[in-house]
Amino acid sequence: MPHQLISDLKEGDAVQQYFLVRQAESRTDKTGKPYLSLALGDKSGAMAAKVWNKVLAKCPGPFAQGDHVGVQAQVESYNGELQLNVRYINTVEALRDLGRDLQEYDPELLCQATPYDREALWQELRQLAETGIRPPLGPLVLTVLERYREEFLVCPAALRYHHPYLGGLLEHTWFVTRHALASLAIYPELNRDLVLAGTILHDLGKIKELANPPAPERTVPGHLLGHVVLGWEMVRAAAQGLDFPDPTLLVQLEHILLSHHGTMEFGSPVVPKTREALLVNFLDDLDAKLKMMSQHLESDAGEGDFTSYNRALQRDLYKGGLAAADPEPDPDQ
Amino acid sequence: MPHQLISDLKEGDAVQQYFLVRQAESRTDKTGKPYLSLALGDKSGAMAAKVWNKVLAKCPGPFAQGDHVGVQAQVESYNGELQLNVRYINTVEALRDLGRDLQEYDPELLCQATPYDREALWQELRQLAETGIRPPLGPLVLTVLERYREEFLVCPAALRYHHPYLGGLLEHTWFVTRHALASLAIYPELNRDLVLAGTILHDLGKIKELANPPAPERTVPGHLLGHVVLGWEMVRAAAQGLDFPDPTLLVQLEHILLSHHGTMEFGSPVVPKTREALLVNFLDDLDAKLKMMSQHLESDAGEGDFTSYNRALQRDLYKGGLAAADPEPDPDQ
Amino acid sequence: MPHQLISDLKEGDAVQQYFLVRQAESRTDKTGKPYLSLALGDKSGAMAAKVWNKVLAKCPGPFAQGDHVGVQAQVESYNGELQLNVRYINTVEALRDLGRDLQEYDPELLCQATPYDREALWQELRQLAETGIRPPLGPLVLTVLERYREEFLVCPAALRYHHPYLGGLLEHTWFVTRHALASLAIYPELNRDLVLAGTILHDLGKIKELANPPAPERTVPGHLLGHVVLGWEMVRAAAQGLDFPDPTLLVQLEHILLSHHGTMEFGSPVVPKTREALLVNFLDDLDAKLKMMSQHLESDAGEGDFTSYNRALQRDLYKGGLAAADPEPDPDQ
Amino acid sequence: MPHQLISDLKEGDAVQQYFLVRQAESRTDKTGKPYLSLALGDKSGAMAAKVWNKVLAKCPGPFAQGDHVGVQAQVESYNGELQLNVRYINTVEALRDLGRDLQEYDPELLCQATPYDREALWQELRQLAETGIRPPLGPLVLTVLERYREEFLVCPAALRYHHPYLGGLLEHTWFVTRHALASLAIYPELNRDLVLAGTILHDLGKIKELANPPAPERTVPGHLLGHVVLGWEMVRAAAQGLDFPDPTLLVQLEHILLSHHGTMEFGSPVVPKTREALLVNFLDDLDAKLKMMSQHLESDAGEGDFTSYNRALQRDLYKGGLAAADPEPDPDQ
Amino acid sequence: MPHQLISDLKEGDAVQQYFLVRQAESRTDKTGKPYLSLALGDKSGAMAAKVWNKVLAKCPGPFAQGDHVGVQAQVESYNGELQLNVRYINTVEALRDLGRDLQEYDPELLCQATPYDREALWQELRQLAETGIRPPLGPLVLTVLERYREEFLVCPAALRYHHPYLGGLLEHTWFVTRHALASLAIYPELNRDLVLAGTILHDLGKIKELANPPAPERTVPGHLLGHVVLGWEMVRAAAQGLDFPDPTLLVQLEHILLSHHGTMEFGSPVVPKTREALLVNFLDDLDAKLKMMSQHLESDAGEGDFTSYNRALQRDLYKGGLAAADPEPDPDQ
Amino acid sequence: MPHQLISDLKEGDAVQQYFLVRQAESRTDKTGKPYLSLALGDKSGAMAAKVWNKVLAKCPGPFAQGDHVGVQAQVESYNGELQLNVRYINTVEALRDLGRDLQEYDPELLCQATPYDREALWQELRQLAETGIRPPLGPLVLTVLERYREEFLVCPAALRYHHPYLGGLLEHTWFVTRHALASLAIYPELNRDLVLAGTILHDLGKIKELANPPAPERTVPGHLLGHVVLGWEMVRAAAQGLDFPDPTLLVQLEHILLSHHGTMEFGSPVVPKTREALLVNFLDDLDAKLKMMSQHLESDAGEGDFTSYNRALQRDLYKGGLAAADPEPDPDQ
Repeated sequence: MPHQLISDLKEGDAVQQYFLVRQAESRTDKTGKPYLSLALGDKSGAMAAKVWNKVLAKCPGPFAQGDHVGVQAQVESYNGELQLNVRYINTVEALRDLGRDLQEYDPELLCQATPYDREALWQELRQLAETGIRPPLGPLVLTVLERYREEFLVCPAALRYHHPYLGGLLEHTWFVTRHALASLAIYPELNRDLVLAGTILHDLGKIKELANPPAPERTVPGHLLGHVVLGWEMVRAAAQGLDFPDPTLLVQLEHILLSHHGTMEFGSPVVPKTREALLVNFLDDLDAKLKMMSQHLESDAGEGDFTSYNRALQRDLYKGGLAAADPEPDPDQ
Repeated sequence: MPHQLISDLKEGDAVQQYFLVRQAESRTDKTGKPYLSLALGDKSGAMAAKVWNKVLAKCPGPFAQGDHVGVQAQVESYNGELQLNVRYINTVEALRDLGRDLQEYDPELLCQATPYDREALWQELRQLAETGIRPPLGPLVLTVLERYREEFLVCPAALRYHHPYLGGLLEHTWFVTRHALASLAIYPELNRDLVLAGTILHDLGKIKELANPPAPERTVPGHLLGHVVLGWEMVRAAAQGLDFPDPTLLVQLEHILLSHHGTMEFGSPVVPKTREALLVNFLDDLDAKLKMMSQHLESDAGEGDFTSYNRALQRDLYKGGLAAADPEPDPDQ
Repeated sequence: MPHQLISDLKEGDAVQQYFLVRQAESRTDKTGKPYLSLALGDKSGAMAAKVWNKVLAKCPGPFAQGDHVGVQAQVESYNGELQLNVRYINTVEALRDLGRDLQEYDPELLCQATPYDREALWQELRQLAETGIRPPLGPLVLTVLERYREEFLVCPAALRYHHPYLGGLLEHTWFVTRHALASLAIYPELNRDLVLAGTILHDLGKIKELANPPAPERTVPGHLLGHVVLGWEMVRAAAQGLDFPDPTLLVQLEHILLSHHGTMEFGSPVVPKTREALLVNFLDDLDAKLKMMSQHLESDAGEGDFTSYNRALQRDLYKGGLAAADPEPDPDQ
Repeated sequence: MPHQLISDLKEGDAVQQYFLVRQAESRTDKTGKPYLSLALGDKSGAMAAKVWNKVLAKCPGPFAQGDHVGVQAQVESYNGELQLNVRYINTVEALRDLGRDLQEYDPELLCQATPYDREALWQELRQLAETGIRPPLGPLVLTVLERYREEFLVCPAALRYHHPYLGGLLEHTWFVTRHALASLAIYPELNRDLVLAGTILHDLGKIKELANPPAPERTVPGHLLGHVVLGWEMVRAAAQGLDFPDPTLLVQLEHILLSHHGTMEFGSPVVPKTREALLVNFLDDLDAKLKMMSQHLESDAGEGDFTSYNRALQRDLYKGGLAAADPEPDPDQ
Repeated sequence: MPHQLISDLKEGDAVQQYFLVRQAESRTDKTGKPYLSLALGDKSGAMAAKVWNKVLAKCPGPFAQGDHVGVQAQVESYNGELQLNVRYINTVEALRDLGRDLQEYDPELLCQATPYDREALWQELRQLAETGIRPPLGPLVLTVLERYREEFLVCPAALRYHHPYLGGLLEHTWFVTRHALASLAIYPELNRDLVLAGTILHDLGKIKELANPPAPERTVPGHLLGHVVLGWEMVRAAAQGLDFPDPTLLVQLEHILLSHHGTMEFGSPVVPKTREALLVNFLDDLDAKLKMMSQHLESDAGEGDFTSYNRALQRDLYKGGLAAADPEPDPDQ
Repeated sequence: MPHQLISDLKEGDAVQQYFLVRQAESRTDKTGKPYLSLALGDKSGAMAAKVWNKVLAKCPGPFAQGDHVGVQAQVESYNGELQLNVRYINTVEALRDLGRDLQEYDPELLCQATPYDREALWQELRQLAETGIRPPLGPLVLTVLERYREEFLVCPAALRYHHPYLGGLLEHTWFVTRHALASLAIYPELNRDLVLAGTILHDLGKIKELANPPAPERTVPGHLLGHVVLGWEMVRAAAQGLDFPDPTLLVQLEHILLSHHGTMEFGSPVVPKTREALLVNFLDDLDAKLKMMSQHLESDAGEGDFTSYNRALQRDLYKGGLAAADPEPDPDQ
């Protein structure tokens, strides 16, 4: 029985396959009996799961965040959301010890990730830093990209709101940077090097803010300092390491990084005071919001012309227009 | 003596040339003598001017908004701003009646206008509506563009804040639309027709909000109703006239027009609930703010690394980075 | 067994009567069994109802929003709120097909509506337009009232917050208009025609914003455009149809309609810039808030001197003063 | 030469008459010479006045706030506002000592005051308290009205924003109370006694907040405690003095007084939690804003369809509609 | 079996002891059977409790807020929070009537209270008023302290947010006052008498705002008038009773009381306009927030470096640093 | 003629002494003649000065910010503020070249500075770091203090709002730190080392934000990055240089520095999430506000019980209470 993607499951489906444990919590039901409340994930998303007392007796676990588990379950609906009623669960490790056949176990399937080829995106950004941004900013960006290559390839763009998955930061950075290239053609008087260095590095601090990309959580420095200043300091340190020769240019790049949230209420200690900083701020915000809209539209399988209310976006979204979207590419363009 | 552009005047210059009267007000000085306070303009901007009692005796006028006048004056500085101390002033009409030689009078020079070829911009938008936006939206945009051709060619984009000059609306619309074309390549899942119709038409209501393009002022409907709803109604009426066949598509375009200010605080009665509306909102806001920044940087001739505080932008701007901008195009791109 | 009003039901009551289905949703309980979650209504309000798996087997439905149904049920309390535990349910249509006696079925009883005589209210407004508002505003109001007579007689005043029932718009409009008549006696310098036309027409757009009055929902144009501009455009179109002769007067009426929410944050694209617009804004807001207060006080059957917190009003309300209200009219006044 | 009202003066007028000194300040001009900057008032308003060094030599004063002065002056325009260029000035007292004929001196003309008969308004409120509000609230209101009769007859309604003149509080209170009587006919379920006691007493604290009615200024308690709580305490003390028998009723009246600013941002320590309190809050706010609008429209003598920006109202106002106002009462109503 | 403190209970514990009923509500479960939902408290806190239908049959009650009850129960976990599954419950009164041995019943244990010796704190404040604050403020403070001695000894500092227990007001007042003594050493130019009178009296109105200290609830005057003005009026009345000789000094103390919430949004009708008022405002706010932080940290027994989100504080808190706190006093200081 | 302090000058005084040029700007008067607008300072404050055209001819300068100048002038009042009408001005340097007697020239008098002994304050902080803060925080603070000793001794605490003078940062830091020592006695459960390290270092970034302490101005990094993050990075770099052994402790100190503005609106990228951070935030804010109040009270020499409106504090201040302040220390305390 091949893996069924979580995003494809519907009420009544029976599943017998592997999942990633994204959250795990022990609880007690009204009658005082313990049960297990899990969030199980694969590359397509996540779903709540319950392991009731009776099942728990046979499958005691323990099960912890990050475990890969084999599961038999039924898809049910509870309060209007789907969840898995688990009949059997065990860790891959334990199953292996029990000598079970793990032929269909494919760790690649279990972790939600960007649909893009992460290595290719990273190479594209690297290429841009090498040939599309002039010294001294180009070499600075290149140095940073290579120093944090491993983290860049896996880090999510956010804990929850947008691109919250493996490679999400890379995908977001790549979109914002490509958009900036397009915008620079419209506004050629802007400093191209600054804008591109700004977009590539604007969210670098996410690497220190978020840990454990497959099931992301915020680090202590992420909580107490925030990615805006963490990223700024990483770039500043890299520039010092390179004896960056143009302090006036550097401070403008630093300004872009610190002001990229656009207003102080949103956590930037300074507001954009250059056109380059304003552009990076807008393109970052736009990509995040478009992605949040897409995610919310996809997650809303209900009827009606409008989605449920989205708290982060502070609005509901119109769904009716999806069918009206361009069914075929326009041959004239 | 050839025309000296207002933007090139400096303290101590003597001028003998023609201007457009952009504002005119009679006042009395502390000793009870009347004088005239004017704003004189040419294509490069505007400057305050004073006609003192003594001069006024010889040049009684009257002078009204919109008059073309011949002027002899001295450029002085008052409270840190340049102004013209007028020694002689008369209307072109009166000068003509007096049989003066008006050889150097060139009305083209007197009115501030977009530096772009307005006819060319309009044709470009028309072309896009005709071949780049599919029916039924394409023909609707085309109809509106042609119906309001005359107004579109002259209307400013705003009373004061950005592009406040002849053809400013066209320039702003053209920038936002070209930017949208670039953005659609990054976000191809958006409905291209809606986005492009939205950018071309988003500020259409300015045509009814602002009157007298050479010296723009707000109309009564502009004041009491606002350009957001005025433009929406113009498009809705045009669609009715064309028996627009797809109400679902039309309401999405209408939504873009009504929501393009992004939030209710900024005068949109609804917030963007589609990705297309969000994109138009961002690109409009970005172009206006970048233009305001450019205008403010240009108008600040003082020393120091930062401009004076700009109220509309609620910040001062960094000037020091201008020299760091790209001196030559990058041959690699 | 005569119809028991929902507002009179209490825990433990048994009911055997007819209801309107205001909402219907299929769900699954914790053990994976389907059940039906309904909102059943009559003229006095609405109550949640559950049709559990076992009952559903006998009464499979389907049941959809708008259906009239016969029901046997028990009134129970769940999380402090009353709900109906359904033992039998079938549509009136099916019952008729089964040859059941529908003697006690009275559709009039099932739908929540204004307690006032709708026809009489409408006639009163019509009369005012005809004899109390001078031309050209009077005939304009009259035309609009008659064109939308059918919708005006049924439309609610809001989806949820105030007067959310059949004829709610009419009731609200009638209160605001009568209050305006009283206010004009205090402030006679205000333009009486404008104020009265403004109050009668201020919420006209609700007719296009809300559909299905017995179980109201927001339409797509209601969501994407909003009733403020929809109503404005309806009046503007009507005025064009009448060749309204006084554009200055018309734009003031339009201004009242667009600004009646008082501030931009509340969805008016412009703020009131005339005294007439300010008065309409205040009387509209006051009637809505007084009604919300009355509704909240009535719905709070609990003990204690204060109601629960009301989100829309952002406060709790004092209940203790109700007994202190004037029990009999004061003979001296 | 009869008294010319300040509101009727225009540029170029010569005046020779009496004024009230509303403000007086000694200043030095740029060349180091002293001059006097005054605000001179009469019953129609106030105007700035300058007594230059040269004049001051002959008319040394001193001139203090509250003085009645005889003045010869020229009306001039300075920075777009009218002011008096004083040629002669002396106090009425000094003129009397000099044996001048003061035949045209009429103190009644000098002080800005409500156009209504203050005694009549007070009697009307008194009458209402006596016969229109039932015990125990009626006698409480009556007691307060009589205890503060002298102050009520002269106190302004505000320092600057609305009704800032002799009897302004009375006029404002009378309007709000009459409006409340009209509103109670529309909303008869509200507690009439509470509403009327609330409107009559809502601004009572102004009596302690403002001193010196002819040229009002804020007292120290007015500054440090504010009229909202001062008025509340005055009523509470009066009720204690009367052994007010119904504490539940009293606390509701107290609540109306404390919450009448409507929100905490506007200085009410609590928000309205009864319908009676909400109504008083709305009618108070409405009367103040309508009056501010009227005052601003009257004070704007300039051309154009819109007034200058009014800071307190945070908007400009439409003037064009004034001509459209009802020229004759409608005989049908 | 000795009393187990609620704060020490964990899942699975069996309890057989006495509690205070802090809240009591009758409910019905899904199957229509009644049960009882209680909040049971002791001096260490409170816990939810359920008395299911079967148990209720044997122990019918009634049970009301404020009752002392004997209970047998099991500690269970429900939705991640502990609750008591009650097997037997009866009031102490009924148990006494039944002749039960109440040897272990100790009312002192049942009510949550400040850990400090209340009598000692009160004496310390009294001492300060007597010898540390000069006349006339000292005697005023002394009079108020003694007049409200009983209430001061029991009143909580708030309904819910900080120090919500017996003697909480006293503890909070004592902390703020001691802090003020320390601050005055740093800022000796502030008026010491005013500051100390201000801190001791700043929350006096809580005595009238909150009733029933063991299970606090807000009174009607507390709701409709608020503690800020109630406390101010109590002090004002006391000063009148003493013929307070210095009105200028008194109005400054009154200002401190009215402005101690710091801004109008937070319910002060005036903002602090003296340094003394500012200091009291800061020290009050600081003590409340530090206490809320401590309470939230203590209540969060979960894993992880950060607490759950605290709504009142609008943030989560860092827990990881607790271990790093100073284990032993520093001998050098 | 000995130096007269600026704070002691009054209208009509003649001065012949030395000043520091704090600002210098060339302007043109209405008739087109150039004049010089200066701000001249000494240790007691600053005053505007004008050098009119006629004087300028004899004293052409140039005069630049930072120059020490000898001046003869008259104190005049202009628009209610005092200013110097300069009759002679020359730089000390030029006067020296001219062989003038500079006997009364004392540079110490010219620069506004903290009234405290800066060296002593610094030593006190140093001492505290050495013996009052335990390792590893103590040595970190010590290192930073010594590395930036020169800057710490001169840097102002702010550009304009509070302590805007030589040594202002040191004075502010010393007050906040001493207050923290006092507060720790009240709240001993807080981590003493963290609090004290936090107060000493909280505004360290001012050293890079502000340049030219005698006439402070904001640097480019100060403008584009801000002192909050600049200071954080300085401490972080110092800790790295010391191989700071406890990363958990360090991140808490860093959190205090980044969060010390209390809210994001005020430029902190994170809000205080520990009690230590909250305390530092409050004590910093309190000292700044108390100082601003003291400065504003001192600068207001006018009559009346209240100062003019202070924009930074958004209020006026009560002056009347000053006389009521404690005239003699209370012997009992």
